[in-house]
Amino acid sequence: MGEENYPSKLLKDAVDELAKLPGIGRKTALRLALHLLKDDENSVISFGQSIIKMRKEITYCKVCHNISDEEICTVCSSHKRDKSLVCVVESTRDVMAIESTQQYKGVYHVLGGIISPMDGIGPSDLNIKSLEERISNTDIKEVILALSTTMEGDTTNFYIYKKLRNHNIKLSTLSRGVAIGDELEYADEVTLGRSLINRTNFEPDNQ
Amino acid sequence: MGEENYPSKLLKDAVDELAKLPGIGRKTALRLALHLLKDDENSVISFGQSIIKMRKEITYCKVCHNISDEEICTVCSSHKRDKSLVCVVESTRDVMAIESTQQYKGVYHVLGGIISPMDGIGPSDLNIKSLEERISNTDIKEVILALSTTMEGDTTNFYIYKKLRNHNIKLSTLSRGVAIGDELEYADEVTLGRSLINRTNFEPDNQ
Repeated sequence: MGEENYPSKLLKDAVDELAKLPGIGRKTALRLALHLLKDDENSVISFGQSIIKMRKEITYCKVCHNISDEEICTVCSSHKRDKSLVCVVESTRDVMAIESTQQYKGVYHVLGGIISPMDGIGPSDLNIKSLEERISNTDIKEVILALSTTMEGDTTNFYIYKKLRNHNIKLSTLSRGVAIGDELEYADEVTLGRSLINRTNFEPDNQ
Repeated sequence: MGEENYPSKLLKDAVDELAKLPGIGRKTALRLALHLLKDDENSVISFGQSIIKMRKEITYCKVCHNISDEEICTVCSSHKRDKSLVCVVESTRDVMAIESTQQYKGVYHVLGGIISPMDGIGPSDLNIKSLEERISNTDIKEVILALSTTMEGDTTNFYIYKKLRNHNIKLSTLSRGVAIGDELEYADEVTLGRSLINRTNFEPDNQ
């Protein structure tokens, strides 16, 4: 669809902006823009303003660097959480995923990304220095590395391992294996191989 | 993912708004919101403002009701367009699709929807009355009905046909048939049947 066909510059500008979003092509952006045009004016104003407000006013927890509406996030300020157990994750999305399991009672440390030389992201761009300081200054017993199992994740894990190995803490990582509910024949061979080596005792109650 | 897991109300509000868009679920909305959070503040402000500006300031052509930045759109005000030929379409998207063919030299009439009792859209919600007035007041020779081939499209076609049949104009509709480049075996039987009945003379130059 040629750009010269937009009947209005206002429409084209909005489509240009919507099409910058990840995974939104120009056709979808046009569909969204025409939907917004048909929508109630006040709804569209609150749509735009909520996004601007979020970007302008959002703050990050001073302890764990997760998105937070207050200086210290609800997880870090909760008396029910075990402050001696810190789970290192890439982003807020990972915190939300782990929280939704309701299995974790420790706290977090959000790196804000992973080391990726291809994207120009080095250790100094991430919240790694503050993790070291946190370990030096507070009583932390265990750090769980919960990053992606990609080359970048492995690189970041190794970098953090080198930084932390002289501290008197336990370093652990998530167990890897065949997902619950998955059929063996569809598991990739690396995962399947590793889950054989790291096999656990069969405990009927935990199945 | 439970809603109680959002680490910030600002984030949740923005996700709520993004998830109202058609085809955007809550997971995608969260991904978009986190993308916007990482984006430059000025870019996000111009993103939000361009959408608000579009909704607030957009106007519609007084003649054809298409989206337009001026009182009369560029198609209706062009001296190169045949004002005696009017193509009736549902929405701006259809105008853009027809314009991109570069095959049409007439003008348009945008209904703003089609008759759909299920959605509570009746003839009075559409720009049908102004189509009749346009035909009464200007020298129109042919009206092309270019609506969807759905039950709602057929209903709308028939309604317009009843309204216009006493005017001295030609009423036509788009030719239907096997799409160019499509294989016969994949064409649906209604389309294939109709394209046999409405077969055209073989003209080697037009193939």
